[in-house]
Amino acid sequence: MLSKYKVLNKINDYKDLKNLSDEEIKSLIEEIRDYIIEVTSRNGGHIGPSLGVVELTVALLKVFNPEMDRIVWDIGHQAYSWKILTGRKEQFKTLRQYKGISGFLKRTESPYDHFGAGHSSTSISAALGMRMAKDLKKEEGWSIAVIGDGAMTAGQAFEGLNNAGWLDPSKFIVILNDNQMSISPNVGAIYTYFNRIITNEVFQKSRQKLKDVIKKVFGEQGAKVARKFEEYIKGLFAPGVIFEELGFTYVGPVDGHNVFELEKTLENIKKMRGPIILHILTQKGKGYKPAEENPTPFHGISPFDKITGTPIKKVGAPPSWSKVFGKALTEIAEKDEKVVAITPAMKEGSGLTEFADRFPDRFFDVGIAEQHAATFAAGLAAEGMKPVLSYYSTFLQRGYDQVIHDIALQHLPVVIAIDRAGLVGEDGPTHHGVYDIAFLRAIPDIVISAPKDQQELRNLLYTAINSGKTFAIRYPRGSAIGEKAEGFEEIPIGSWEVLDEGKDIAILAVGKYVEKAKETKNQLKKYGINPTIVNARFIRPLDKKLLNEILSAHHFVITMEDGTVNGGFGSAIAEYILDNRYSNELLRFGIPDRFVQHGKIDKLEEELGLLPSQMVVKIMDFIKGENYKVVG
Amino acid sequence: MLSKYKVLNKINDYKDLKNLSDEEIKSLIEEIRDYIIEVTSRNGGHIGPSLGVVELTVALLKVFNPEMDRIVWDIGHQAYSWKILTGRKEQFKTLRQYKGISGFLKRTESPYDHFGAGHSSTSISAALGMRMAKDLKKEEGWSIAVIGDGAMTAGQAFEGLNNAGWLDPSKFIVILNDNQMSISPNVGAIYTYFNRIITNEVFQKSRQKLKDVIKKVFGEQGAKVARKFEEYIKGLFAPGVIFEELGFTYVGPVDGHNVFELEKTLENIKKMRGPIILHILTQKGKGYKPAEENPTPFHGISPFDKITGTPIKKVGAPPSWSKVFGKALTEIAEKDEKVVAITPAMKEGSGLTEFADRFPDRFFDVGIAEQHAATFAAGLAAEGMKPVLSYYSTFLQRGYDQVIHDIALQHLPVVIAIDRAGLVGEDGPTHHGVYDIAFLRAIPDIVISAPKDQQELRNLLYTAINSGKTFAIRYPRGSAIGEKAEGFEEIPIGSWEVLDEGKDIAILAVGKYVEKAKETKNQLKKYGINPTIVNARFIRPLDKKLLNEILSAHHFVITMEDGTVNGGFGSAIAEYILDNRYSNELLRFGIPDRFVQHGKIDKLEEELGLLPSQMVVKIMDFIKGENYKVVG
Repeated sequence: MLSKYKVLNKINDYKDLKNLSDEEIKSLIEEIRDYIIEVTSRNGGHIGPSLGVVELTVALLKVFNPEMDRIVWDIGHQAYSWKILTGRKEQFKTLRQYKGISGFLKRTESPYDHFGAGHSSTSISAALGMRMAKDLKKEEGWSIAVIGDGAMTAGQAFEGLNNAGWLDPSKFIVILNDNQMSISPNVGAIYTYFNRIITNEVFQKSRQKLKDVIKKVFGEQGAKVARKFEEYIKGLFAPGVIFEELGFTYVGPVDGHNVFELEKTLENIKKMRGPIILHILTQKGKGYKPAEENPTPFHGISPFDKITGTPIKKVGAPPSWSKVFGKALTEIAEKDEKVVAITPAMKEGSGLTEFADRFPDRFFDVGIAEQHAATFAAGLAAEGMKPVLSYYSTFLQRGYDQVIHDIALQHLPVVIAIDRAGLVGEDGPTHHGVYDIAFLRAIPDIVISAPKDQQELRNLLYTAINSGKTFAIRYPRGSAIGEKAEGFEEIPIGSWEVLDEGKDIAILAVGKYVEKAKETKNQLKKYGINPTIVNARFIRPLDKKLLNEILSAHHFVITMEDGTVNGGFGSAIAEYILDNRYSNELLRFGIPDRFVQHGKIDKLEEELGLLPSQMVVKIMDFIKGENYKVVG
Repeated sequence: MLSKYKVLNKINDYKDLKNLSDEEIKSLIEEIRDYIIEVTSRNGGHIGPSLGVVELTVALLKVFNPEMDRIVWDIGHQAYSWKILTGRKEQFKTLRQYKGISGFLKRTESPYDHFGAGHSSTSISAALGMRMAKDLKKEEGWSIAVIGDGAMTAGQAFEGLNNAGWLDPSKFIVILNDNQMSISPNVGAIYTYFNRIITNEVFQKSRQKLKDVIKKVFGEQGAKVARKFEEYIKGLFAPGVIFEELGFTYVGPVDGHNVFELEKTLENIKKMRGPIILHILTQKGKGYKPAEENPTPFHGISPFDKITGTPIKKVGAPPSWSKVFGKALTEIAEKDEKVVAITPAMKEGSGLTEFADRFPDRFFDVGIAEQHAATFAAGLAAEGMKPVLSYYSTFLQRGYDQVIHDIALQHLPVVIAIDRAGLVGEDGPTHHGVYDIAFLRAIPDIVISAPKDQQELRNLLYTAINSGKTFAIRYPRGSAIGEKAEGFEEIPIGSWEVLDEGKDIAILAVGKYVEKAKETKNQLKKYGINPTIVNARFIRPLDKKLLNEILSAHHFVITMEDGTVNGGFGSAIAEYILDNRYSNELLRFGIPDRFVQHGKIDKLEEELGLLPSQMVVKIMDFIKGENYKVVG
């Protein structure tokens, strides 16, 4: 694959960049872009962000020394060319594949991944910590954070800037990679502000004000005088005033696709003191037409046709859980005008596009602001609205305190729709949504549920919105289970359902593991084992009445979930068995006590022993151990 | 108590304010101050913040209508005069007492507590949610957040501002209550910025720049012309440019202790459109000399002598856990220059004053910035430092994602010192640190520990710092247990200790509950019961070897902890028993599945049945239920 790239083929790592002519640098950049497009078209990935920073990567590697300097790429999904140029050219083909190269930054993958990243807005904090460490150790080297304008809306980025401005370190650069997009087009006042910097409106506005003043004092004659000031005033009304006020020296905006200008600017910055913010303008998906023209779907994408940019989709695949959620929410909102939706910058990913189009006034994309999202929803609920707060499970971790303090403690009826719960596959350990059951289950009064299929997601959403309670619904990434769904039915809170009555063994399964429980049962049949299958659609409260019956009628109990075994649903069952002095034996399937790497979900499940065929073996072993009579 | 207050005595709620003369208003303000000092001197409380906003409270209640308008007091600890003037004048005497008035805002306490609060920096988000709800419902009324300059350093406040600037609502005010303090004197660039606004340095600096420009163009003559611009330029270089850039109209700074000026300003604001930021200057502890002169200890204080301001301390009380921690850390840092300490604005509370004085370069108060604190510590660790990251348990909830994503997942050796773990007493449900065991226990590879006494805290800290692991140590609020401690000893990670060997029954206790377990044993003796007492100082990893022995040698196992029973340490033991097919019976003591209110810790423990005498009864019942032969 690499042999076709004339320049890339002959350079082995960043050190070789210094020997290239300007023409070769230009060719290299094009080749890297093509290689990224090639690999992501096969493997899927964050093509948009990575295509936007090829020039920046090359410039950074020419001007700085990654052995000594520290470069933290925010979120890490911009770092494809970084990986290619820091010794991972060959391995890059395995991007996002099981045991292959990670789609994010990962310290264990390479010494050049100076800090791990997958979630947004951590780069300034991390780079500042590194800066302070270097100062204390009196070590050489710069510390640099590269952060997108979208990530800049997150509170943590502000916390980092605020602390950096206070500590006032030298050899510290924040590169604001401004592509006027986060995942979706950006929202937030800070974004408007960046835009005004670019169009020079800050300057324009101030200049107009000054002109008015001069005109008022001196009349028309004065206005002419004012024009002479222009050159000087430009410096006075420099853009980036917010950053200047926070103690940074602002440099920019600079064309992020002019590698030579970038190089020159970075060389100049090297002579400056104090914290510096370099504002560069880039285009998401730069150099790949389909991505340039339609950046949102190309932020992160599944495999696609390289020529046309069309995603390679399985024909007739069922809709995603996100789509089912979004459609159901829109239908409910048609009939209930109190329903509002809040997302922290995940409109498309969470299936909320239709809702946003249909009810623009009742839709709030608050930017990458997971903490604010939760409290904002609580404020809406306090005034009688019915907010549905949509998170990816892994990002809900950022709103945990607010869910406790602002929502649950105040008994506010906020529905928390948790998308991407469980293993997420190729995005890997930074993104697996496996902790939510454990961390939510400790919160009093909250309802936690998980649907077994599309129809149940609709019913749970309907139930939640009308419940008057803090109510979480978790569902996984990917294609939804079940037939086409329609209508709504209220589900009694805390009620489970027996799907298939058996004997001696009961399997209590959560969410998508209900399907796996059924498959497991099918395979167990050949051993003459006939377990009862229960859809434990409420993780809390438990269906105590049914659970008591199950525990009385079955000796062996098996739980299946895609949450951590430590503290997860199976843990709740263990607590219940012992608290109520049952003598059942329990086997728990779930995410074991270690970080799970990236790869296709079924590959990961196989590694963890969570495929039905594997669970069958463990179950047979479990019941044999107790001399259970195996028939046949 | 109230009869001595001439004006306060005759007004029953805020509606009566409108009938008072200016002189009466002034007297009322003094009387409210005296009443607050009186009550907090008896009950303890957040005297500093509340004394600072008496005038603001009166002005808000005169200008706005709390039936229709929404006022959200950030953190809620400024709201004492609000409580007094909204129908809780009499009950205010019971401030912070068991079943009495809460020290924070609480929706269930009064319809005038429009939004609950206890943690900082949520007010803008909540008030904005309320604003949007009112707009959607087409309801009358303003929405107002009152937030301190300290709380403004938190990322969530920025997220809220950023979203508000974007949504651009009218009838929305953020009142920046600037007392140049959070709990400790403030840190962060934004604080420097506020200070420059006040001293008018922003204006001065810009004016000087303009003068220079004019001079350059027109020579000395021009400089004279420039002076004429001054009046006009003032408007141009208005302070508050950051807020203006974020889409707010900035008003201020205004003297927050001039009630009539405040009233007038608020009336003027009522005529303005779009989101407004009102910057007022107040003094923490205003009107109470000891608090004015020494604001830090008077932020939140235990009962004190009203005349002298001296805290009423038990003579010879042992040092607090925080003090023991801070002293030990300083000693370790003397010998190991890689040790650094990070606190999100809790220097005094966390016992870090000595460390900060001794090692100013290695001490980082990052402001109220819990997310940044964790990632910043991770950055320090990535460069080989040994960061000790200090949180109150309840505030660690805000750094949860960063502990997973930036620390544990990257296997970075950060020590997380968790102060105020367990019930915190008078601060109540917003502050109880009862979730940490459950939410941390789900994270792979992290070590979680809790010391039984002072010496063990020292030893665990020493062990943690030298472990090379992500290592949490949790300890409670209040006086430490045990004799004077000194020296350091490494404790094998994951090792428990048997403190007292008994039979049939084993009590596994965590942290301060080890002492309670011993007391319980003493009381059980009279029934002829002799339980084994185990100090389960590691919550994870469990001491599996010892646990196996315990489970084999004892039928009944009892766990004691001040974490939630759902998912806590007892839950880990339940998992272990069933995963390993033991047939032990388990009784778990801990924080039950409901929000615990405020009051003295022993009062709360009594309510929850966690006093040794109560646990004895439950244990007797538990073992009787199984026909355990009770001797004697």
